[in-house]
Amino acid sequence: MDAPSPLPALIRKKRDGERLEDAEIRSFVRGVTEGTAQQGQIGAMLMAIRLRGMDAGETLALTRAMASSGRTLAWPPAWHGLLVDKHSTGGVGDKVSLALAPALAACGCKVPMISGRGLGHTGGTLDKLEAIPGFRVSQSPEEMQRILARVGCCIVGQSAELVPADRVLYGLRDVTATVDSLPLITASILSKKAAERLSALVLDVKFGEAALYPTQESARELARSLVEVGAHLGIRTAALLTRMEQPLGRAVGNALEVLEALQCLEGGGPPDLRHLVTALGGVLLWHCGMAADAEQGRERLARALDDGSALGTFEAMLGAQGVPPDTARGLCVGTPAQRRQLLGEAKVCEELPAPQEGWVQRVRALPLARVLHRLGAGRSRAGDPVNPRVGAELLVGTGQHLRAGEPWLRVHHEGTLGAEGRRELQDALCLGPEPPRDPPPLVAETIVPSGALPGPCRDSQ
Amino acid sequence: MDAPSPLPALIRKKRDGERLEDAEIRSFVRGVTEGTAQQGQIGAMLMAIRLRGMDAGETLALTRAMASSGRTLAWPPAWHGLLVDKHSTGGVGDKVSLALAPALAACGCKVPMISGRGLGHTGGTLDKLEAIPGFRVSQSPEEMQRILARVGCCIVGQSAELVPADRVLYGLRDVTATVDSLPLITASILSKKAAERLSALVLDVKFGEAALYPTQESARELARSLVEVGAHLGIRTAALLTRMEQPLGRAVGNALEVLEALQCLEGGGPPDLRHLVTALGGVLLWHCGMAADAEQGRERLARALDDGSALGTFEAMLGAQGVPPDTARGLCVGTPAQRRQLLGEAKVCEELPAPQEGWVQRVRALPLARVLHRLGAGRSRAGDPVNPRVGAELLVGTGQHLRAGEPWLRVHHEGTLGAEGRRELQDALCLGPEPPRDPPPLVAETIVPSGALPGPCRDSQ
Repeated sequence: MDAPSPLPALIRKKRDGERLEDAEIRSFVRGVTEGTAQQGQIGAMLMAIRLRGMDAGETLALTRAMASSGRTLAWPPAWHGLLVDKHSTGGVGDKVSLALAPALAACGCKVPMISGRGLGHTGGTLDKLEAIPGFRVSQSPEEMQRILARVGCCIVGQSAELVPADRVLYGLRDVTATVDSLPLITASILSKKAAERLSALVLDVKFGEAALYPTQESARELARSLVEVGAHLGIRTAALLTRMEQPLGRAVGNALEVLEALQCLEGGGPPDLRHLVTALGGVLLWHCGMAADAEQGRERLARALDDGSALGTFEAMLGAQGVPPDTARGLCVGTPAQRRQLLGEAKVCEELPAPQEGWVQRVRALPLARVLHRLGAGRSRAGDPVNPRVGAELLVGTGQHLRAGEPWLRVHHEGTLGAEGRRELQDALCLGPEPPRDPPPLVAETIVPSGALPGPCRDSQ
Repeated sequence: MDAPSPLPALIRKKRDGERLEDAEIRSFVRGVTEGTAQQGQIGAMLMAIRLRGMDAGETLALTRAMASSGRTLAWPPAWHGLLVDKHSTGGVGDKVSLALAPALAACGCKVPMISGRGLGHTGGTLDKLEAIPGFRVSQSPEEMQRILARVGCCIVGQSAELVPADRVLYGLRDVTATVDSLPLITASILSKKAAERLSALVLDVKFGEAALYPTQESARELARSLVEVGAHLGIRTAALLTRMEQPLGRAVGNALEVLEALQCLEGGGPPDLRHLVTALGGVLLWHCGMAADAEQGRERLARALDDGSALGTFEAMLGAQGVPPDTARGLCVGTPAQRRQLLGEAKVCEELPAPQEGWVQRVRALPLARVLHRLGAGRSRAGDPVNPRVGAELLVGTGQHLRAGEPWLRVHHEGTLGAEGRRELQDALCLGPEPPRDPPPLVAETIVPSGALPGPCRDSQ
């Protein structure tokens, strides 16, 4: 039990750029969780942390204090070493989790994936899954354990009992301009993972125009903070720095992304999506001791996509999370037309013509996402509904040649796309007089703990 | 009407060290006043302002926006040019207002003085006045005007209708470690004065161990900010930088300070108190055009203390603010014993002996105030009650010689002064083997607007 520290004294200390002791950080988090800290005090502390920073030790203490602010998950001893998860900092068209969780489970991992919802221009895995009729993202820890025992993976929302301190801080960060703080991001992400009691974690830290971080350098800084603090939490943590300039895959929008994830689970789909799924999963299999290195892990994961075991696991997960068996079956083995019918389609399906001839240099994710957001695919405030049927399919890829008038984008909307929106969408298409040079690799860099060797996996304490 | 700006964007701007536009500051203050700004957002903005600062233009805009967040006072045209007030940043034993307001009124000024309560180790004028049975600090603007018409001065608490934005921000600053922010202090002080529609204002900015600011340099910075922004508000503003190492006068504690203020109003009392009252009042009379310069103003104020007109005005003010005529009369013309009886006395009156022989170098105000605070003279939280009878009288002054065992302090308490408290009090007495050198002057510096000449006084708009 820590001696109570008056909160204004702690705020003053951080305001003056001093280091907070572990006990002081625990005292702050306790105030946040128990409600004895005033909202104004929390806001001031968040801003002081945003402007003064926290060192790795403070960040670790904050993460630990938040992780133990509520219930933590517990697993059968037999699963230790096998519990893995992936977290992404958010992008456009990112349906990786939908394919990755079942593929990892098909390889023998246990994947208690706790995901989020979309906000602003970035999508959310839970919203994508809710495009499937019957899917229930809300599962108690006991239900999660039953599903993991039977299926090997589940994808659920954060329960109210887990990391309550994060819910308070996360909600306030959004309205106090303190979202982009390295220690606060690190603690928010890792406290939830620590409460999941993971063995290994892989982070997809995106950078570029449509990502939280614009540059590779800033993304690397976050990745290093996450990997370092994750290691201290006893979670084998790695991070991939990945580009987020163009949408991942060809589909953006909740239902359309489910369709694309199904293609990936069948061993097909766009190469960039498959590449990222297998790269992220490969690192996890390596870190779990299921593969000798990341490359072997990647091959093993690719096999799970190709041999139907990942798809079968996905179908089982859908069933376990409330989707009627016929629907789950139809989605997983049906024709594209049957799948589209099961998910429903928007009123209007409109193709945009290329305004001129040229070579596709790239398609910018940000304007695309912004227009789709306005059409109903995204939300501006937590709790707003989204329209799962709204979305867009890219009909072209980088390096392809387009004639003037040839369609390049298929937009699914409810009749609300106006001239302004069309103009904005056309701005997303970058054409050039010549073929583009080879694009830089999607995965720019892999960050692993310094000096870490792939030995036996430790469980998070 | 300003276009509404989303508050997170304003917080982000200040967080990043950018300048806020006038309309943006108005929008923030409107959110504070109307309650649309969340407490967490206000806390974050206060911390961003504390750490990033505001320039003079922003501070002026903040002051103006706060001043017009509620009702403002209005006065008969005949009083224009005569409306004056004094504000102090808080010290120990500071009973200046009790003598200054009636002395100024006796000189022909109108003094709608809005004062505060004590917090922490500093005392508050309202608490001192409430040591007088029947005194009512709560007066409506209409009542204030009636009292000013009849008596010339009143000393009241801040009404709920005046500057509501300051009440919110002031309350939050205390718990968010954002009290010591130059723009926030400036706006808090001057918004209330602007809402009073003053002609002239003098500020007593204290520095030293027992003051808000430890050094003369930091006090000067605040004084300059106040004088500059005050001038832009159309208030003729001056500031005196005064030392706050030792208590002002010989008495500390609410009832004891009333007694000492009465001595000052009779033309007597400790020289340092009389010096400060006349210095502050002299500048105001000069700035009101009632004296050719500050020195002449000081002489005129000294006459009002010496000729009984200030004391008569004080008696009239007490009567107008609820004190029964017999009590007011007894206090103002009674013997010291009668006065003490009217105010009541603490259970125990204990004298502390000098622990050794020596020359009094100084008596430190801070430890003295801290012990008295614990004995009940002060409050730790707004709203706590205070015991007006608790206090202490200095029996010695700087430069005096003390024999070991000779009493140097008389403590008035309710039987709760223990060994620890006595030890702390003894620490306040600084003795030396030789007489001290001449002490530095109490008023270290006078700050007036740059280039300002004592011309006709403008009224605040």
